[in-house]
Amino acid sequence: MYPLIALVASIIALLSAAGAAFMVLAKPKGTERMVEIYEAIKQGAKAYMGRQYKTLLTFMIILSVIFALAVDYGYFVSGREGYEIYFPHTGLSFLVGAIFSALAGYVGMRVAVEGNVRTANSAKSGLKEALGTSFKGGLVMGLCMVGLALLGVTVFYLAWRNPFLFAGFGFGGSLVALFARIGGGIYTKSADVGADLVGKVEAGIPEDDPRNPAVIADAVGDNVGDVAGMAADIFETYAVTLIGAMLLGWPLFKQTGSTVFLEYPLLLGAIAIFSTLVGALVVRVREGGDPTSAILRGIAVTAILAIAGFYYATWQLFNSLNLFYAAMIGVVLVVILAIFTNYYTSYKYSPTKAIAEASQAGPAINLIRGLANGLESAIFPIIAIALSVVGAYMLAGGMYGDVGMGMYGVAIAAMAMLSIAGIIVSVDAYGPIVDNAGGIAEMAELDPKVRDITDTLDAVGNTTKALTKVFAIGSAGLAALALLLAYMEEVATYRGVMLSELASRLALTRPDVILGLILGGGLTFVFAALCMKAVGRGAFGMVTEVRRQFKEIPGIMEGKSKPDYARCVDIATRTALRGMALPGAIVILSPIVVGFLFGPYALAGLLIGSIVSGLALALMMANGGAAWDNAKKYIETGTFGGKRSPAHAAAVVGDTVGDPCKDTAGPAINPMIKAINMISIILAGLIVATVFFA
Amino acid sequence: MYPLIALVASIIALLSAAGAAFMVLAKPKGTERMVEIYEAIKQGAKAYMGRQYKTLLTFMIILSVIFALAVDYGYFVSGREGYEIYFPHTGLSFLVGAIFSALAGYVGMRVAVEGNVRTANSAKSGLKEALGTSFKGGLVMGLCMVGLALLGVTVFYLAWRNPFLFAGFGFGGSLVALFARIGGGIYTKSADVGADLVGKVEAGIPEDDPRNPAVIADAVGDNVGDVAGMAADIFETYAVTLIGAMLLGWPLFKQTGSTVFLEYPLLLGAIAIFSTLVGALVVRVREGGDPTSAILRGIAVTAILAIAGFYYATWQLFNSLNLFYAAMIGVVLVVILAIFTNYYTSYKYSPTKAIAEASQAGPAINLIRGLANGLESAIFPIIAIALSVVGAYMLAGGMYGDVGMGMYGVAIAAMAMLSIAGIIVSVDAYGPIVDNAGGIAEMAELDPKVRDITDTLDAVGNTTKALTKVFAIGSAGLAALALLLAYMEEVATYRGVMLSELASRLALTRPDVILGLILGGGLTFVFAALCMKAVGRGAFGMVTEVRRQFKEIPGIMEGKSKPDYARCVDIATRTALRGMALPGAIVILSPIVVGFLFGPYALAGLLIGSIVSGLALALMMANGGAAWDNAKKYIETGTFGGKRSPAHAAAVVGDTVGDPCKDTAGPAINPMIKAINMISIILAGLIVATVFFA
Repeated sequence: MYPLIALVASIIALLSAAGAAFMVLAKPKGTERMVEIYEAIKQGAKAYMGRQYKTLLTFMIILSVIFALAVDYGYFVSGREGYEIYFPHTGLSFLVGAIFSALAGYVGMRVAVEGNVRTANSAKSGLKEALGTSFKGGLVMGLCMVGLALLGVTVFYLAWRNPFLFAGFGFGGSLVALFARIGGGIYTKSADVGADLVGKVEAGIPEDDPRNPAVIADAVGDNVGDVAGMAADIFETYAVTLIGAMLLGWPLFKQTGSTVFLEYPLLLGAIAIFSTLVGALVVRVREGGDPTSAILRGIAVTAILAIAGFYYATWQLFNSLNLFYAAMIGVVLVVILAIFTNYYTSYKYSPTKAIAEASQAGPAINLIRGLANGLESAIFPIIAIALSVVGAYMLAGGMYGDVGMGMYGVAIAAMAMLSIAGIIVSVDAYGPIVDNAGGIAEMAELDPKVRDITDTLDAVGNTTKALTKVFAIGSAGLAALALLLAYMEEVATYRGVMLSELASRLALTRPDVILGLILGGGLTFVFAALCMKAVGRGAFGMVTEVRRQFKEIPGIMEGKSKPDYARCVDIATRTALRGMALPGAIVILSPIVVGFLFGPYALAGLLIGSIVSGLALALMMANGGAAWDNAKKYIETGTFGGKRSPAHAAAVVGDTVGDPCKDTAGPAINPMIKAINMISIILAGLIVATVFFA
Repeated sequence: MYPLIALVASIIALLSAAGAAFMVLAKPKGTERMVEIYEAIKQGAKAYMGRQYKTLLTFMIILSVIFALAVDYGYFVSGREGYEIYFPHTGLSFLVGAIFSALAGYVGMRVAVEGNVRTANSAKSGLKEALGTSFKGGLVMGLCMVGLALLGVTVFYLAWRNPFLFAGFGFGGSLVALFARIGGGIYTKSADVGADLVGKVEAGIPEDDPRNPAVIADAVGDNVGDVAGMAADIFETYAVTLIGAMLLGWPLFKQTGSTVFLEYPLLLGAIAIFSTLVGALVVRVREGGDPTSAILRGIAVTAILAIAGFYYATWQLFNSLNLFYAAMIGVVLVVILAIFTNYYTSYKYSPTKAIAEASQAGPAINLIRGLANGLESAIFPIIAIALSVVGAYMLAGGMYGDVGMGMYGVAIAAMAMLSIAGIIVSVDAYGPIVDNAGGIAEMAELDPKVRDITDTLDAVGNTTKALTKVFAIGSAGLAALALLLAYMEEVATYRGVMLSELASRLALTRPDVILGLILGGGLTFVFAALCMKAVGRGAFGMVTEVRRQFKEIPGIMEGKSKPDYARCVDIATRTALRGMALPGAIVILSPIVVGFLFGPYALAGLLIGSIVSGLALALMMANGGAAWDNAKKYIETGTFGGKRSPAHAAAVVGDTVGDPCKDTAGPAINPMIKAINMISIILAGLIVATVFFA
């Protein structure tokens, strides 16, 4: 029965998304100039997504054929449970996961593009209308994501009944999300940094000024990077966490014969969807009201309903609240992470103020201080995550308790954390929508009042954006740990023993485990490096191109002749597509190389090593970047000399350096640490079977 | 017999150091103006070291009393082997280690200060004389360091015969080295960055210009940071590696009854000293010759002699070459690390050239590219270190072999790596000596030819400096891993079982191990953050003060009135002393808190987690900083506009940001990852005995 509830919930979510989408599309697009800008952004975004998806789809089809032939056939030959007759379970589910993830990203991008212009137009009628339009746009995405993820997993479960057979669904999602995050991140920051450095800093024209040749590329970037990338990312986190929980439920099912361990995560997902639908209804603001409290109210209502539902469901299913307590750990973790993020990135508090103050001594001191703050900011979320793992494990499994239940508890905590993903994504997607609406208002030279309204909404967007980022990292960390545990279970299954019998092979005393750990530590660094490098390259190309246009096109500064927007769009597109190949390849290949060369225990080391350094690095980059951004905004409020002071110029340098940290490399680490876990889970059996010293 | 050879070797090393010191001191100091500058630097350096050591010594005495009362008494009560009667082994050896480490730093600083001015004076007579003086200065330090470390460990071994009893010697050394690295690093970079930002960038006066109020603080910083900090650091690495190897030899001794496993590391140390003495003799250059090849010749001769000696000694002692092969891994690792470092930091190769090129688009792109390169540069050394661990383990212990022998092999590889520490330190210390000699030549307005000679020597110093840095990180990584293994042995000893029986408690499946790992990953980040923050604060204070003096002291720019050097010295001193407290406390307290709260297995996780992220972070910071520096130098050769171009200004920002990375936070991570291992080794028994869920 539970899977059917999940099926119904996911369909309701998708239908509600469609409804919200129609409501957005029904709104008028505004003036001719607005439509013109909208068309340019739409063309650019569709062109980029089209090229990205064409490349990716080809690649995914090839991979799925390889999986069908190598992985599925290998499992068939070795007679793995579920492979009694040959069927390309992994290949098929992988391809479906990839397509769903791409769909989530595409829907996100399309809704955002349609929402931007309509929000700008709604803002003419005031705050209430503008919030309504933009939040509905975000809602489409939030509901789509969780709906698609839950639908996919539920249907596969109903069809195949064994989570291992459709682990490929998660990996397909991970991989597309990974490329979407990398590619979109490179695109958006190449364009943004390039536009700002020449436009704002050198030429002194405002942001989103239509005279800036990179302005359309910048707007396209917001849609394909911030929105589509994030959509694919959260879809992926949701799907892999669900699958991870089911994989960890599998040995419990084998022990007890009860499918409740497999179906409980699905039920949690369904409860979360119903809670999200109610929570979304209360996000309303009256004219002159405070949009922040409206949004926080929506999140709170969703969370409370979800908690109540979890309580009831857990008691009904297990006659014990242990797993409910584990789930609560996940919910509490979100709140704690939000508090720390706010402290380290808002200019109300001393860390960000200190960066602004340091700017008075020039860009170098701003950067030293910002780097230091970013590095420091990682520790508290890390402590919270570490304690959550132990807490969830012990609450579910007992102090000396059941390893299997303990691990399952960690997965349930991650799942609970994601229960509010739907509303969080809605809120996050709303951010770039109003941001872009403001841009369109600027470019279309609308009444400044319109820009004021979008700015008010945008300020809220910045708060929620920081919240989502830390939510994405925290949930990725917990999900990745659950997947790591699932991987180790897989290895044990394949060795035909209980995990406890294998434990000594996974000990820190083993040289192969140490090797894996150290390599994993370096892996996220080189991954982040390649993302940053691509942005550096793209931004450099963009700067050169914008400088050239300003010099070579006569009358461009007076607004008499139009800049060549298309060339800037082209530079961003090419850099992004080229830049995502190498980091993507590293993520796919390193677990394969380490696994087959050094065995499954070295691979376990690699996985946790990359989580260990990846968490710290992602938090450092996300918080550091946000703090640099807000330090600049703090100076713009008039402190330390205000706009156009030397301190402001220094802060702009910091902000620019922070951009690829917080919007490219940092967020790309989230899908990365899950993707390498997923591929390891899929290959575990083959590695155990073929490696000499397994 | 072997310990006696070690004793003789260490005494010969110290006598040779004294001889070299007399030879340096016998040289004349030069003109009156030079003596005046020398006095100012000497006063500043002595004042800082005096204050630093007074604070540290008090703290160390308190700690040693605590160790004597808590640790030693605890072991006495629990009847640990060696504690048949109460004796404060740990407290006493800790204090001696701390004093020796401080002595190493102090000697280093004094020799450097005396050597600087004399090198400047020797340079009047040409390259040969200048190299002779400066290299002898470096040699004093190199020989002192290894001599003191080997002497201390050998005497304790002869007296107590049990490495665990004098593990405190290593921890004392670690702790002083840690504070010396942090404090010295903060001092030198606060002064350097402050001096450069206002002097070079804003006022446009050359480096080391006597009109700059921060110039004396800068010179003092080079001596207390680069030299004294590095001296204490290498002393520490040497001592803890020696002790770590003996600790891992202990269970082998227990099994076989042969002391050869305890004495072999001492013998390797003795062989290395004799090799170093011969190697030092061949470092000579004729007038107009190439000092680089002279120095590399010295290193090569030392290495070849050491290898030959290791071969002979290993065969004699063990009738097997397995441990010799493990030792060779350490030697090969040094070469491989040097190659990668050179590739990622020299402007002959594309990574550094790319940073220079990116500077044309402004400081932000320079920084993005530099950060990316730094992050990327970590991976190859990490792969090399990871493979070395597995290689040394397997060569010594066999593929399915003996865990004990395998671990011992890792320690021997680390020991072999350090065999060339003496000559490397000599070469490294020579770098700051000639650098400062150049500064003195500038300040004393000597003949430009003198500066040319010191510049020639300094260019060599930059190459060797990069080599030493990577040597320090690589050896720290290997040493820390050996210590981690020693820690786990300790835990097993205390549980009264073989390590293999404990292995499953150290498994990656355990939530406490995972907790430790994640926390360890964050620990190095927050540690580095606090170091960077202190530099940011100090540099900010320095910038403000120098700006004030330029504005308020009339005639300062015309050289008519003297700047107030003392105030700048004071700012650097205060920032450094204040800045070292918190990072130091974190290093001491976190293993205690994690160990006693979450048990010995969580602590094992913390230790390796900090190695995993520490290695990556230290490599990123060292290489990133060096590459930024060299990118600036590349532009100064006339590329991309040369000096005073916008690209150069951008590169200066990158260089300044890189400074605290490569000279404060990065190097401080080396003693940090060993210090937390050492304190864990010392406390292991108590943690096992008191923690509830051990």
